[in-house]
Amino acid sequence: MSGERLRAVYHLRGNAAEAGEIAREICVEQTVEFPVELIHREDVREGIIGRLVDLRPLGEDLHRAEVDYPIEVAGRELTQLLNVLMGNISLKRGIRLVGFDLPPGLAALYKGPRFGRQGVRGLVGRPAGPLLCTAVKPMGLSPHELAILAGQFAAGGIDAVKDDHGLCDQSFCRFEERVRRCAAAVNEANAKHGGRCIYLPNVTAPCDELIERVHKAVEWGAGGFVLSPGLSGFDFMRRIAEDDSIALPIFSHPAWQGWAIVSGDSGISHGTIFGRIARLAGADATIFPSFRGRFSFSREECLDIVQCTECDLGGLNPIFPVPAGGMSLPRVPELISFYGPDVVLLIGGDLHRHGPDLAASCRRLVDLARNARPPEIPRPAG
Amino acid sequence: MSGERLRAVYHLRGNAAEAGEIAREICVEQTVEFPVELIHREDVREGIIGRLVDLRPLGEDLHRAEVDYPIEVAGRELTQLLNVLMGNISLKRGIRLVGFDLPPGLAALYKGPRFGRQGVRGLVGRPAGPLLCTAVKPMGLSPHELAILAGQFAAGGIDAVKDDHGLCDQSFCRFEERVRRCAAAVNEANAKHGGRCIYLPNVTAPCDELIERVHKAVEWGAGGFVLSPGLSGFDFMRRIAEDDSIALPIFSHPAWQGWAIVSGDSGISHGTIFGRIARLAGADATIFPSFRGRFSFSREECLDIVQCTECDLGGLNPIFPVPAGGMSLPRVPELISFYGPDVVLLIGGDLHRHGPDLAASCRRLVDLARNARPPEIPRPAG
Repeated sequence: MSGERLRAVYHLRGNAAEAGEIAREICVEQTVEFPVELIHREDVREGIIGRLVDLRPLGEDLHRAEVDYPIEVAGRELTQLLNVLMGNISLKRGIRLVGFDLPPGLAALYKGPRFGRQGVRGLVGRPAGPLLCTAVKPMGLSPHELAILAGQFAAGGIDAVKDDHGLCDQSFCRFEERVRRCAAAVNEANAKHGGRCIYLPNVTAPCDELIERVHKAVEWGAGGFVLSPGLSGFDFMRRIAEDDSIALPIFSHPAWQGWAIVSGDSGISHGTIFGRIARLAGADATIFPSFRGRFSFSREECLDIVQCTECDLGGLNPIFPVPAGGMSLPRVPELISFYGPDVVLLIGGDLHRHGPDLAASCRRLVDLARNARPPEIPRPAG
Repeated sequence: MSGERLRAVYHLRGNAAEAGEIAREICVEQTVEFPVELIHREDVREGIIGRLVDLRPLGEDLHRAEVDYPIEVAGRELTQLLNVLMGNISLKRGIRLVGFDLPPGLAALYKGPRFGRQGVRGLVGRPAGPLLCTAVKPMGLSPHELAILAGQFAAGGIDAVKDDHGLCDQSFCRFEERVRRCAAAVNEANAKHGGRCIYLPNVTAPCDELIERVHKAVEWGAGGFVLSPGLSGFDFMRRIAEDDSIALPIFSHPAWQGWAIVSGDSGISHGTIFGRIARLAGADATIFPSFRGRFSFSREECLDIVQCTECDLGGLNPIFPVPAGGMSLPRVPELISFYGPDVVLLIGGDLHRHGPDLAASCRRLVDLARNARPPEIPRPAG
């Protein structure tokens, strides 16, 4: 063992005695998963089992525990690293993973986001200010119809046009025809208007087709990807991000990951799942439901995500927060005031509310975003 | 569109008006994800959007909603089928997926469990009665040491010896050496004692190594696999189950899936995630924490899982429930009385509490299980 430790922070429901007991259970459950009194080998007791390094109260019935594990327990595999952080204990109520670090010995194994904020800015030619994203939808339109929308979005100055995350390879909208047509439409609009919009097909797919779809999408002119790692497995995101023959940005979609966060005192904190873990897996941008949208995230939860997109994490690139889920044009100034300039605003259905000329609606959105004021009050640090 | 529908059942927090609104949101959110009033195409409005087919009260603040979707929306992909059932709406509080069916048009796309209960019984030569399973652990032992344990378990009459789910390819216990040694030890014990124990290595792994590990494990004499689909993605389980060149049973491990169930009124019901979805993905046996173990599942939640391992689901094979998580020898009669004879009992650490002769402890477990009475009171039906 190298002596290097992976540190995880948990919030534990219970008084001091209860939380201490839960914390010691975590140390065992996430490693040896075996009665400690029956382990007679000192190298296993001392070298494998997690250690409770700090326990402090956050309230009468809530405690914060820092546990660390030998990095060797996490191996060199993202699947096992996630398992150490929150495998078996995800099944227990009252344990919430609220953070982890990435020590050098693990950071060396993970490249993280290939592009990050600066890289994505370079790709779309926006060195500063908010980026704008929308989606081709609704499901049910043909590839031809979706491509017309994509071209209008690109002509109107949108930076990134993504597939709606429910589009895959349905009989009424096949992957190949959709990607070919949408990529062509975006790239033609770019050529005509001098833009650098990127089209992001959804590559969430069966395991034996996913990487092939990614490569085909590159060939057909895609500018990046949308992936739902909750559905595909997080390791597919790492796989795509690390592949030099792909080398395009990834927008992480939160579908199927909501379980992690819906229960206030169990699961995984918003920032940890949509910020830290998304970055660790290689997302360049992380989509999440913003406060005051169709979903029920609070301002504090959104801020937690933003902070985890840019906090120190083993030197991995900071990534874009992408607040979404029922955002609208009139809310653009408020959103930028809250999220600041390092954000990708994802506005979907509302773009269709402002008349039939979609490119004009996009230009209006672009104007609103470019003219919005940066936040007057700096956000509180980490 | 074929007219065939995929039916999902949700429990919704709220009074009748609130639940009705949430149910209608689900119909939209899981399909077009677009303002309905802006969809002018009748084929999209009528043909794509989910339908609320039934809504009834379960209590003052709880309703049961049946929603159905055109099967074409789920495509031919497990990732998208899961996304339709619980993608975006996993992010909302107060929505719980408690069931779904598998209509013929979808059932034709999924082979499900290759072995199921009868197939696994055939492999291990136990046509009736409870099966017994244990795990090689604790993490930290060498492949050589784990193999000695595996051989003792097989010699003692255990039907299935699995890797602890935290064992992957760590530097202190490499996959190849572990699988080669454990498989050899089990197979040698079988030859010596006339047993048919199967060794199940953990094949949860990075996406570009997982299938290779499965094939190697087959070559090295494994008798099946443990996979944590929450970590790998569910589709890898389908992929392994359907592959005729593999053709060995899969035990599904619940790591990282706990978020689905820890929150009582959000997420996914115990039976749906550990029963229906595990079967849909091709598990032959599904491991879950039993009542009165180290975890906090109730009798009702365990019974829900058992019922969903055998309920009608598009003709897919019934699979074994594998109650686990701190089970002990003295509890064997109680467990069999509750779960009945169609169960795999997974007893780990406790086998090591009864003296140094592990094979003797296994034989004691076997005797306890063979002599236990079947349940006197039939369990209530579905």
